[in-house]
Amino acid sequence: MMRKTSCTIEGMIPVKTIEWRGDLDGAARLIDQTLLPNEVRYLDVRDVETMWEAIRMLRVRGAPAIGIAAAMGMVLAVRDCPPICRDDFVAAVNRAAAYLNSARPTAVNLSWATRRMQALVAAHPELTIEDLKERMLIEAKAMVDEDNAVCQAIGRFGAALIKDGDSWLTHCNAGGLATAQWGTATAPIYLAHAAGKRVHVFADETRPLLQGARLTAWELQQVGVPVTVITDNMAATVMAQGKVQGVIVGTDRMAANGDFANKIGTLGVAILAKEFSVPFYVAAPLSSIDMQLESGDLIPIEERPPEEVSEGFGRRTAPPGVRIYNPAFDVTPHRYITAIITERGIVRPPFRDGLRTLFQHTSTP
Amino acid sequence: MMRKTSCTIEGMIPVKTIEWRGDLDGAARLIDQTLLPNEVRYLDVRDVETMWEAIRMLRVRGAPAIGIAAAMGMVLAVRDCPPICRDDFVAAVNRAAAYLNSARPTAVNLSWATRRMQALVAAHPELTIEDLKERMLIEAKAMVDEDNAVCQAIGRFGAALIKDGDSWLTHCNAGGLATAQWGTATAPIYLAHAAGKRVHVFADETRPLLQGARLTAWELQQVGVPVTVITDNMAATVMAQGKVQGVIVGTDRMAANGDFANKIGTLGVAILAKEFSVPFYVAAPLSSIDMQLESGDLIPIEERPPEEVSEGFGRRTAPPGVRIYNPAFDVTPHRYITAIITERGIVRPPFRDGLRTLFQHTSTP
Repeated sequence: MMRKTSCTIEGMIPVKTIEWRGDLDGAARLIDQTLLPNEVRYLDVRDVETMWEAIRMLRVRGAPAIGIAAAMGMVLAVRDCPPICRDDFVAAVNRAAAYLNSARPTAVNLSWATRRMQALVAAHPELTIEDLKERMLIEAKAMVDEDNAVCQAIGRFGAALIKDGDSWLTHCNAGGLATAQWGTATAPIYLAHAAGKRVHVFADETRPLLQGARLTAWELQQVGVPVTVITDNMAATVMAQGKVQGVIVGTDRMAANGDFANKIGTLGVAILAKEFSVPFYVAAPLSSIDMQLESGDLIPIEERPPEEVSEGFGRRTAPPGVRIYNPAFDVTPHRYITAIITERGIVRPPFRDGLRTLFQHTSTP
Repeated sequence: MMRKTSCTIEGMIPVKTIEWRGDLDGAARLIDQTLLPNEVRYLDVRDVETMWEAIRMLRVRGAPAIGIAAAMGMVLAVRDCPPICRDDFVAAVNRAAAYLNSARPTAVNLSWATRRMQALVAAHPELTIEDLKERMLIEAKAMVDEDNAVCQAIGRFGAALIKDGDSWLTHCNAGGLATAQWGTATAPIYLAHAAGKRVHVFADETRPLLQGARLTAWELQQVGVPVTVITDNMAATVMAQGKVQGVIVGTDRMAANGDFANKIGTLGVAILAKEFSVPFYVAAPLSSIDMQLESGDLIPIEERPPEEVSEGFGRRTAPPGVRIYNPAFDVTPHRYITAIITERGIVRPPFRDGLRTLFQHTSTP
């Protein structure tokens, strides 16, 4: 019988959301998030149609993870192309890009990743088709490494803010399951935990789609981080009881002044944190910060179908015909933020100056 | 074909949650709230066992409504008693009280109502058994009238605070479905609507048990009050967008200084209302104000089973084995309250003085 302590380090490494297994003949392995938390099933994806379906059906979700899935999908799409005619190969690459982009038309990372693969092929007319396939696989794997590097850097800066014995609250899933492995908002927690700090997490369940209860709670549980699920409307109470020492969330898009969009409910949590003098942190990779955007007022908010609220659990929970408002995101003004945690360091107010300085350093630390 | 306008007044009267139909041979008619909002079914309850089951299974819920149901249950329990031996009759009354109290042991209004019926019988040794039965029915009906009078008085005071075109937000169901008909927090809305003011309501869905989405939205919809359901974590956004002109909630128990317990999530809404300078009102019948209780710190908070959070919708939404915190209520400090609306008038800060003055007037207005 294996002793628990013998696999402590292994157990502290978060679940791999998506990775490439083997060489060019291998497969993209991803965890099917539609089955979580009730069933843990890994899919070995071996053709582009299956990858398209996995993206479409949210088996893989979260901007960075979708980008990686699309890049691997490109590899799957062309790996069996005959090594004869370069024009045919380029046409196949372009068809694969258009096809994968159609899986979730509004996901920016999807087209970003497919364009990156197209650019790679275009940039190397000197390579053989077989070599191009290998380079595409290397590129897809590099995207995993880059994502891990960014998340781990955020994790190192953020972990320093966590004290032994702290409880932190998070909202939605800016976790490993939204990236290759470490997450943005969860990376500081994973690294603090791995460093031996005792840290407990309150996971808001995050209505309507329950990413906090289904995903964040699950992934933290896998590595043994103590986690307590609460409904969104309990956040005020746990803060009032003095049970929360920090809040950390991710962001879908941050403006140059620090205002940021994130999953609906983030604004409320930010206001509560201010009221109870709990530090409020945003984990924001540089790729999510749009320095062209002056303020959060300019961020458009997607409204989603009312059925997510009224029939989100397989049975109707609001009267037929009733009006439902279902904004997917909210915008939190920068005045509620204690600090922004990026892969290049921690930014404190005034945020406009701090973010500008960050982007002026073109090299990574 | 009936024209819609011909039944406008009728349509403005809220749904009757519970009423006695007919004479002593009649029945207690109540709406089965476990089927809402998907099915509207009225139950004609003709025996005490059925009433016990209706209370137990939450077909009727809400403190005032439960009290009335218990009183009517007492009538049902003894109406077929032979009119021979008074001792046997008193014993039957006492058995019925104990039996009904066991339906929901922590519901204060249940034992309050059954004690009131026992006291009535004890106070009238001069009456025949047949006359006692009639008096018990009169008493049960009087409880409906008293509840309506209290709620309507709160409604009149509160309606004056609502301006034409306002949107108000409410949390949980302190509505007609928790009382005989008018509700506490909803009565001002019903009366403003009936007076021709245009008033729209945001109903927080109110996790975990969704009383807002299931019940408040439904009952407002029945009388044509425009209502929009939002998840709890959207309250900040609708306030930030300037869409909310007032918040009104009920209370389970208020202390002498105005601190009050109410459904979990109320505290968060109160803090948001303060942040966005939206007036925050508490509808509080005198029966819910405990002048012996110095402050809200002394109010015990019931924790409920984790399954309400993790399996509230017929399928599991959090990983097996994860810790869940499920407090049923929270306590909102009085500093977040703009005014308390009672059946004797509106109390503004300082609340301790205002509430004391209110209780010194022993007669109703």
